[in-house]
Amino acid sequence: MKLNETMSTENGWNLNIEKIDQSKMITYGSNLLCGNGYLGYRGTLLEGRKEDYVACIVTDTYDRADGKWRELANLPNGLFTEVKVGQKVLNGIKDGATTLSFNFENGVMQRKTDYKLQGGILKITSSRFASFKQLNTLVASYQIKTDHNLTLKLRLGIDGEVWNLNGEHLAKTTFNNESDTLYCQAITTESKLEIAVASGYNLDGGIIRDKSFIRKDKELYLDITLQLEAGEKCIVERIMTVNSANDCEKPLKNVQKSIEFALDKGYQSLLAAHNLVWQRIWSKSDIKIKGNLEDQLALRFNLYHNIIATPAHSERLPIGARGLSCQAYQGSAFWDQEIFNLPMFLYTRPEIARNILKYRYHTLAGARKKATNLGYRGAFFAWISGKTGEELCPAYFFRDVISGRKIHNHFNDWQIHVSPDIAYAVWNYYLATDDWEFILNFGAELIFEIARFLSAHSYYKKDKDRFEFIRLLGPDEYHENVDNNAFTNYQAQFAMEKALYIYYRLKEDAPDIFKKIKDKINLKVFEITNWQEMAEKIYLPEPAEDSKLIEQFTGYFSLEDTTPNVLESRLIDKNEYWGWPNGVAVETQVIKQADLIQLFCLHDIFPKEVLEANYDYYEPRTQHGSSLSPSQYAIIACKLGNIKEAYQYFKKSVLIDIYNTNKAVSGGTFIGGIHTAAAGAAWQVVVKGFAGFRLRKNGISFSPNLPEMWQELSFNIVYQNNHLNIIINQEELKIRAIEIYNKVEIEVNKRCYQISGVDKVLKIKY
Amino acid sequence: MKLNETMSTENGWNLNIEKIDQSKMITYGSNLLCGNGYLGYRGTLLEGRKEDYVACIVTDTYDRADGKWRELANLPNGLFTEVKVGQKVLNGIKDGATTLSFNFENGVMQRKTDYKLQGGILKITSSRFASFKQLNTLVASYQIKTDHNLTLKLRLGIDGEVWNLNGEHLAKTTFNNESDTLYCQAITTESKLEIAVASGYNLDGGIIRDKSFIRKDKELYLDITLQLEAGEKCIVERIMTVNSANDCEKPLKNVQKSIEFALDKGYQSLLAAHNLVWQRIWSKSDIKIKGNLEDQLALRFNLYHNIIATPAHSERLPIGARGLSCQAYQGSAFWDQEIFNLPMFLYTRPEIARNILKYRYHTLAGARKKATNLGYRGAFFAWISGKTGEELCPAYFFRDVISGRKIHNHFNDWQIHVSPDIAYAVWNYYLATDDWEFILNFGAELIFEIARFLSAHSYYKKDKDRFEFIRLLGPDEYHENVDNNAFTNYQAQFAMEKALYIYYRLKEDAPDIFKKIKDKINLKVFEITNWQEMAEKIYLPEPAEDSKLIEQFTGYFSLEDTTPNVLESRLIDKNEYWGWPNGVAVETQVIKQADLIQLFCLHDIFPKEVLEANYDYYEPRTQHGSSLSPSQYAIIACKLGNIKEAYQYFKKSVLIDIYNTNKAVSGGTFIGGIHTAAAGAAWQVVVKGFAGFRLRKNGISFSPNLPEMWQELSFNIVYQNNHLNIIINQEELKIRAIEIYNKVEIEVNKRCYQISGVDKVLKIKY
Repeated sequence: MKLNETMSTENGWNLNIEKIDQSKMITYGSNLLCGNGYLGYRGTLLEGRKEDYVACIVTDTYDRADGKWRELANLPNGLFTEVKVGQKVLNGIKDGATTLSFNFENGVMQRKTDYKLQGGILKITSSRFASFKQLNTLVASYQIKTDHNLTLKLRLGIDGEVWNLNGEHLAKTTFNNESDTLYCQAITTESKLEIAVASGYNLDGGIIRDKSFIRKDKELYLDITLQLEAGEKCIVERIMTVNSANDCEKPLKNVQKSIEFALDKGYQSLLAAHNLVWQRIWSKSDIKIKGNLEDQLALRFNLYHNIIATPAHSERLPIGARGLSCQAYQGSAFWDQEIFNLPMFLYTRPEIARNILKYRYHTLAGARKKATNLGYRGAFFAWISGKTGEELCPAYFFRDVISGRKIHNHFNDWQIHVSPDIAYAVWNYYLATDDWEFILNFGAELIFEIARFLSAHSYYKKDKDRFEFIRLLGPDEYHENVDNNAFTNYQAQFAMEKALYIYYRLKEDAPDIFKKIKDKINLKVFEITNWQEMAEKIYLPEPAEDSKLIEQFTGYFSLEDTTPNVLESRLIDKNEYWGWPNGVAVETQVIKQADLIQLFCLHDIFPKEVLEANYDYYEPRTQHGSSLSPSQYAIIACKLGNIKEAYQYFKKSVLIDIYNTNKAVSGGTFIGGIHTAAAGAAWQVVVKGFAGFRLRKNGISFSPNLPEMWQELSFNIVYQNNHLNIIINQEELKIRAIEIYNKVEIEVNKRCYQISGVDKVLKIKY
Repeated sequence: MKLNETMSTENGWNLNIEKIDQSKMITYGSNLLCGNGYLGYRGTLLEGRKEDYVACIVTDTYDRADGKWRELANLPNGLFTEVKVGQKVLNGIKDGATTLSFNFENGVMQRKTDYKLQGGILKITSSRFASFKQLNTLVASYQIKTDHNLTLKLRLGIDGEVWNLNGEHLAKTTFNNESDTLYCQAITTESKLEIAVASGYNLDGGIIRDKSFIRKDKELYLDITLQLEAGEKCIVERIMTVNSANDCEKPLKNVQKSIEFALDKGYQSLLAAHNLVWQRIWSKSDIKIKGNLEDQLALRFNLYHNIIATPAHSERLPIGARGLSCQAYQGSAFWDQEIFNLPMFLYTRPEIARNILKYRYHTLAGARKKATNLGYRGAFFAWISGKTGEELCPAYFFRDVISGRKIHNHFNDWQIHVSPDIAYAVWNYYLATDDWEFILNFGAELIFEIARFLSAHSYYKKDKDRFEFIRLLGPDEYHENVDNNAFTNYQAQFAMEKALYIYYRLKEDAPDIFKKIKDKINLKVFEITNWQEMAEKIYLPEPAEDSKLIEQFTGYFSLEDTTPNVLESRLIDKNEYWGWPNGVAVETQVIKQADLIQLFCLHDIFPKEVLEANYDYYEPRTQHGSSLSPSQYAIIACKLGNIKEAYQYFKKSVLIDIYNTNKAVSGGTFIGGIHTAAAGAAWQVVVKGFAGFRLRKNGISFSPNLPEMWQELSFNIVYQNNHLNIIINQEELKIRAIEIYNKVEIEVNKRCYQISGVDKVLKIKY
């Protein structure tokens, strides 16, 4: 099926690109990322350089160079492979006709280039993947075929001249070789982390005429002069292994061991093991759509990227807002992690959701530190959270492109909703898994510290007898410095209530653990009294009697009422940041993204007419300047039965990266790369939106409503350890239990059903 | 004595200007203003036009033109007087050598111009004043003298083409004449206020050859062809009277009656009556300095301008921040009125201080409306307060001169200290006058409503068990959106305490009035409970144990520590506004004006080492971007015994207008004109600063410390109806009672004295 530009897909798994050019490589590099949650290797050509945005971003390599922003390091490129014929270095973009293809089923990228040389045609075919079996290993197969006798120079090695957003991260770079395998060691400039990269190859075909080592400042190559006969092909297997001292004691030894192992195994064997891992993942997390290949492909593209962005191998690492596709957003977690990335894991591979939440537990110290620094108690989770959970978000994030001055945004001190968002995710994890043990060991402390922070942040308004939250940023980031953002206040109230529930249940059911936690965090009775009062008296903006509208924050409705298009016309410079302190949206009702609608996605507490009125009000005022936005509108549009609009928002959301619709630079700051939250949200739009899946207090529910074009939708849900397969078409919904341990209550279109045995299929006609 | 530029003074009353040019006329026009608190007529030449910034600003003519800012109207210029010789219109700036002179003793402006004509010399001499006896009457004498036979054309009349800051205020302008007296009527565009102007003359000398009326769109003139012989002089007395329907029922009738009266009386007789009024005023409010004529003149310049800016004829009109010198700041009161303008009146003519405070009582409805609009109870006094007390301050006051976009400043919703400042002034009025009857009739309701507002505005912080004020602007306007501005919090706490005192004293001593007020404003017991709790628990930032520093607001010390000079170098455009939201000062510790130092000027509650530490800290960080600032530093420098620096700040403050040191445009907004607050502050620097005068709970105190150059300082103080004359020299202080009704406790340099009889002189050597 043809897609936009020169793209196509044949089976909803693969994405083919017929024509590439330099200007697209920043997009393709992200979209065709090979990754495994440990590292991300951008979809560039193996002969690519810094200017092609080549990168191998590795988790847990945070460094702050030249006093700039802390971010993950881009490691020296050990897969570098280049062909030179005569004096001509061959470049697949400038010199040849190159097509790319990516298979999201196993994350294998393929590349084909035909070069018309003076003597005839030279064909390069290569494929590569980031092993999901050996996470530190990148594997490529590079085939050269010529239709004429040819001597060429093959340059293999490590290119340490890499692209960085904020300063050079590697210092004291040293190179070594052990016969033909090359090694690079370096230390990150500020975090003083040792890293090592190995680069090796297996060569099959051609006659080697000469070999020599080429050493430059940050590069080490092995040049092989190779003689090929007409019709002959030669295959170079390229292996790169990487490690940092955060993974293992001796990175150099480790990359050595790994590369020896990999070179010994070879491409095909490594691929087979890798494929097995992907098969297991897709058997749980795939969603099949019959009826539109573009939707199928786009959906899988997003599922794939959500998977490879997630450091499932660790419980101490965040999901980056751009995954490992580049250094943007500092390789760090935002609230996106719990609200956007996590649900797909929660309902298909809950053990990973557990990991994600344990990351927050492990970063409690950072959140406590942030709270203390700002004069609060408890846990104020970082807006941009790296390894330690300390706040990484710089005070000056954007730039006023007109005056050139830095802008002091307040993402890092006013955007408090990340804390209750985490409490919300913990609670839903508990509901979805019944994993009370998690609450005992991790969740209780997390939620208590969050409640404590919320209590310290809130103000009591005596004359109104209510608690308020002052000076906030809600999800809509264009409006900073607002009071009583409905989303934040409702989330906070939810967190306080759950804190009280857990407090009393622990006290009753697990007095020893209760005492341990209480002592550990020095929790006082007066605090619980305060939580109780707050839970009752947090100001929750209600729908207006007549209009049913809920005000996004106090005073929102008094702002200038206009539309994103009008604001567009007011821009002096198209790269202007629209928000705080004096962007075009600040004094208007135009919002960056779903805010109240976001609240509706998290809580089923308002009647349909309220959802409807607010959807109709906020929708035309939303710019969708954040990739987090369209998915949430899609979900609520589904709930309102407005499937046509839901489908448009689904498309908008799942195609953000494939069709590169969001701008890569705002207010002078690079924010390109894979939109991981949108990747995670794709699962939600389909499952929560079109299938109408909801987690209920006891059991789950569906209210399906497929786009016209879709004949069938199928996916799996894990609910309290019961594995269910759901198939939905335009007439009926079928649920089959794959594994089941207790009976599951299922509500479909407001009628209740139960499923209790394996292979019993519950068929429900609408 | 020579002063700067071409200025001089002979006796400390007059200011002579030898050379004038067009570029200075905006400054001279303000400085040489004739006024009487009812109207202000700018010190321009009588032949001046719109482009010379001619203006006659009349109180109580508020109008909002074209949806722009509400401001006072500039009325048609009925003093217009022009001489034409042949085809040449004579202009004193372009065509002749003109000197100006102003006598601040009686507000008479003089002008002399010599024109070299083809036939010889023509001399114009004129003088004029705004009658302090008939407030609606402007009187000029215009003398023409020629040394050769000459026929000239004299044009007298009304020029309605006037200068406006924000739109045309007059519509439906009609002209009339009754014999040679001309009349103009008009209606303000939005407030629909009828205004009338009359223009008449008495002519003595010369032979009238012809007379004709000239009518243009907004102008009506009488052209008189006059024949003069060599050596002959002719005197034209010019009278202009003005009224609006806010002064009298029939403005036209009134100006008619007034001009008939004035024309009949003539210049000399009108001047004599006028002088008597000024004599009475100066007998109370003058301050004499022996030792430096520049200081004497500058001081009187300021006293004069404070007097003529104050609408003493009314208790329903504000003192404009630029008086009646132009339309800037909308002819309206700021907190300047109570904190800067009022003290001189309070201690020299307390009946006018009473008027000023009654204005606030009369505008309670406006303050209540503002509070209600913003979601509070009580009285939130307007930042810019006109006739009704409704908020006149536009949300967009300045402009970002780089992007050209309007700036949403928050002077009108976050700058709450004006309310407690008024409470502070009411309390001091009571202490200084013992006028308890004022409290009963006006003050109690004022202060109760202020306390009620403060209570509604405050937030209670449970974890800290204290009340806070959030999102403020303190006196330092560069830092908006701050919490717990020390100045505001201390002022608020003071207001709450006085509210409680008055409440309980009224309850005990005047139960009927108590009940009346309580019923009128529906005051509830729970409110008093809340006031009591607040008075005890308002967060009052304390001096740090070690450094003795008080933080201007929460987080101030964490801002970038730099100086005004450094910020100057960061400006992209010299007209940039330095403050909110992204001016160069916002993220730094550089402050616009005295803030904590301002607090020290109002409350004697901190020991000297605290004053010293904070003065030393804040002084180099203060830009003095407001004319309110230098005077306050001068007062505290006096208190610290740093007389040299105090004297420098005194000079800086009293010379702001004479030497035109403050910029007339900031962030694209015209803020020129007379700095009335600095005018009022001049009295304070001398009396509170160098004489060390303080109001005490019982009695008054002095701790004199004169600048080296000053041999003697003398002034009067009215304390609780006792009139005292104070003479201070470098060795001793003498107090003489002029009128005395009860004995007055006087503390001098911490020793107590009493004075109880007229003409008893208390002499205290230091």
